[in-house]
Amino acid sequence: MKTVSMSLDEAHALATECLTRHGADEENARAVADIVTAAERDLCHSHGLFRIPGYVASLKSGKANGRAVPAITELAPGVVRVDGGGGFAPLALEAGGAPLIERARQNGIAALALNNIYHFAALWPETEALAEEGLAAFAFTAAFPYVVAPGGRTPIFGTNPMAFAWPRPGGHPMVFDQASSTMARGEIMLAARDGHSVPLGAGIDREGRDTTDPKAILEGGAQLAFGGYKGAALAMMVELLAGALIGDKLSFEAEAVDNADGGPPVGGELIIALDPARFGDAAGFAAHADLLFGRMLADEGVRLPGDRRRKARETTARDGIRVPESLSRTLVALAAGK
Amino acid sequence: MKTVSMSLDEAHALATECLTRHGADEENARAVADIVTAAERDLCHSHGLFRIPGYVASLKSGKANGRAVPAITELAPGVVRVDGGGGFAPLALEAGGAPLIERARQNGIAALALNNIYHFAALWPETEALAEEGLAAFAFTAAFPYVVAPGGRTPIFGTNPMAFAWPRPGGHPMVFDQASSTMARGEIMLAARDGHSVPLGAGIDREGRDTTDPKAILEGGAQLAFGGYKGAALAMMVELLAGALIGDKLSFEAEAVDNADGGPPVGGELIIALDPARFGDAAGFAAHADLLFGRMLADEGVRLPGDRRRKARETTARDGIRVPESLSRTLVALAAGK
Repeated sequence: MKTVSMSLDEAHALATECLTRHGADEENARAVADIVTAAERDLCHSHGLFRIPGYVASLKSGKANGRAVPAITELAPGVVRVDGGGGFAPLALEAGGAPLIERARQNGIAALALNNIYHFAALWPETEALAEEGLAAFAFTAAFPYVVAPGGRTPIFGTNPMAFAWPRPGGHPMVFDQASSTMARGEIMLAARDGHSVPLGAGIDREGRDTTDPKAILEGGAQLAFGGYKGAALAMMVELLAGALIGDKLSFEAEAVDNADGGPPVGGELIIALDPARFGDAAGFAAHADLLFGRMLADEGVRLPGDRRRKARETTARDGIRVPESLSRTLVALAAGK
Repeated sequence: MKTVSMSLDEAHALATECLTRHGADEENARAVADIVTAAERDLCHSHGLFRIPGYVASLKSGKANGRAVPAITELAPGVVRVDGGGGFAPLALEAGGAPLIERARQNGIAALALNNIYHFAALWPETEALAEEGLAAFAFTAAFPYVVAPGGRTPIFGTNPMAFAWPRPGGHPMVFDQASSTMARGEIMLAARDGHSVPLGAGIDREGRDTTDPKAILEGGAQLAFGGYKGAALAMMVELLAGALIGDKLSFEAEAVDNADGGPPVGGELIIALDPARFGDAAGFAAHADLLFGRMLADEGVRLPGDRRRKARETTARDGIRVPESLSRTLVALAAGK
C-alpha cells in the first residue's frame, strides 16, 4: 500500500480543515482533530484520520451539528450531565471533564452523563485523560445493533465498548478499551472485502449457525459477544448504562433514527470517575497497584494493556505517521471543500 | 445421589447452628445463614449449604472472626468504608447497605469499600439487594490467584467475579454475576475428581500449553480468563478496584497470608451504586430498560440473566430443597459441635 508521510501537526491541521470546510466551527473541529490525532499518535489508525470522511459525511448530511455548544447541568452532587446538542463527542467531553474531576475529588466518586452526541472515536482518550488527573475511570457507550443475545438471532446490542483507566502518578496510566463483541465491525468488513474468513466465535449466519464467513455475518447474520454469555451480559450492561440510565438511546433506537450517512449514530456515554485519594489507601494505592503490574511483567510474554499505544508515541512524535495515499487524497479533497 | 429434603427455614436454622456452635455470635451466624439460604432458595447449591464446612473451618482455625463487629467510616461524601474486622462478609455488607443507599440517593452515585472480610459467597445477593432499593449496582471482589495474564504462565489474578444489577420497580431486578475466569475453580476440581475433561480455553498446563486435562490445570498450570485478553483485562481491573483502590489485598497477597484451612481468603470488595432517579430520565428509565429486555425476550431462545434463579424461588419456597445426604450428615455433625 502506498503511503504518504505526515507529522502529527500536519495530520491535525488537515483534519481541522476537513471539518471546518464542511460546516464545523473552530472549537468543534479542533476538539475532533485532537482525538483523531491522538489515535494516529498511538498508531490506532482505525480511529484516526480514517474516520474523518465519516465525520464529514455527518456534517454534509446535516445529521451532526458542527456548531454544537455543549450545555452542562448538575443533576446531583455527584452527577454532571452534558447535553452535546447533537454535535460530535469530543467538545462535549471537554466540557464535562473539569466538573467531573471536581466532583470526583470532592465526593470520591462521580459520574458524567453525555447525551445527544455522535461518538465516533475510541473510549481510551477520555478515560486516560481522567487517569492523568489522578482518577480511576470507566467509560461506556452503545452504538448500532450488531450483536445478538446468547441463544438469539436478532442483533440487539451494539459492539458496546467499555474502557477502564488506572492512574499511575509519575508514569503513564494503565488503560484498556475493549468492545463487547469478539471482533470489531470494521475488521469483519475488511475480511469480507478481502475474501478472508474470520475466526469461529465472531458471528452467526442468518440461520443462527456459527460461521467463519464474514459476509454471512454482515448479510442477515449477527456478531457474537466475546466469551459467550459473559461478554453478552457486558454488552447488555452498556446498553443500560449509556442508554436507559442516562436517558439516551439504546442501540436499536439509535439505528432507527440514523440516516445511514456512514457516520456514527446519535447516543449517549456514561463515565464514572473514582478518586483513589478519597478511598482507604491515599498514600499507597499507586505503589500497591505497581506491585500487581510488576508481577504481571515478571511473567515473560505478558504486556500491560495499552503498552503498545504508549510505545507508539515515541516513534510517531519523532517520525510522524504514514497515511495511505488514497486516504490522503480523500482528505486533501475534503479540505479543499469537495 | 441420595438427598435429604429440607425447608428453607430448616436450612437456615441448620446453617446458623453450625456457625454458632463453632464460635460465631448470633448476628454473624444469622447474616451468613441468610446468604447461604438465599443461594439454596435460588438453587445455586455451590454457594449454599455446601459452603458451611468452609465457613466452619475458618472459625475453627481462628482465621475468621465469628464475633466481628463491622465498623463504618465515611471517607468522602460519596465513599463509605466498612472494616469487617476479619469477619465474614455478610454482616459487613449489611452494615454498609444503609449508608451506601443513603449516599447514592443523595449524590446520584456512591461507593462502598469493604475491607478485611472473608467473602465466601456470590456477589449477586448484595447487588440485587441494592436494585430492590431502586439502585443500579456493581460489585467486585478478588480471591486466590488462579488465572494467568494473557501470554503468561504464572497465576496472578483471582477468578475475580463482577456483578451488575439493574432495578425494575414492580418486578425482579435483572442481575448477573460472573467470574473473570472461563470456569469456576470448583467445576475444574469436580472434573478432576470425576476424571472428566474440561473445554479448551479453561486453562493451561505447567508448560503454558492449552489443555483439556483439569489435573494439569490444577497441578502447576493455571486457569484462563473468559474471552482471552478481554476477560483478563477485567480480572486485572477487579484486582485494582477490590485491592489497590480500597487498600485491601491483591489475590496473590491474600494467598500469601492464608492458612489453607479450606475457607475463603481475606480481602476486600468494592460496590458502586447509582441512582437512576438522579440521572437524566428519572420517570422513564425503567420502562426504557424494559424495551431492551422485551426485545431480548422476543428473540426466541434468549433468557434474561438471573431468570433461572428467579424461577427457582417459586419451587423452593413451596417444595423446599434437596441436600446431598453426605452434606446433610456433615452439617448435622457440625451443628452438634463436632
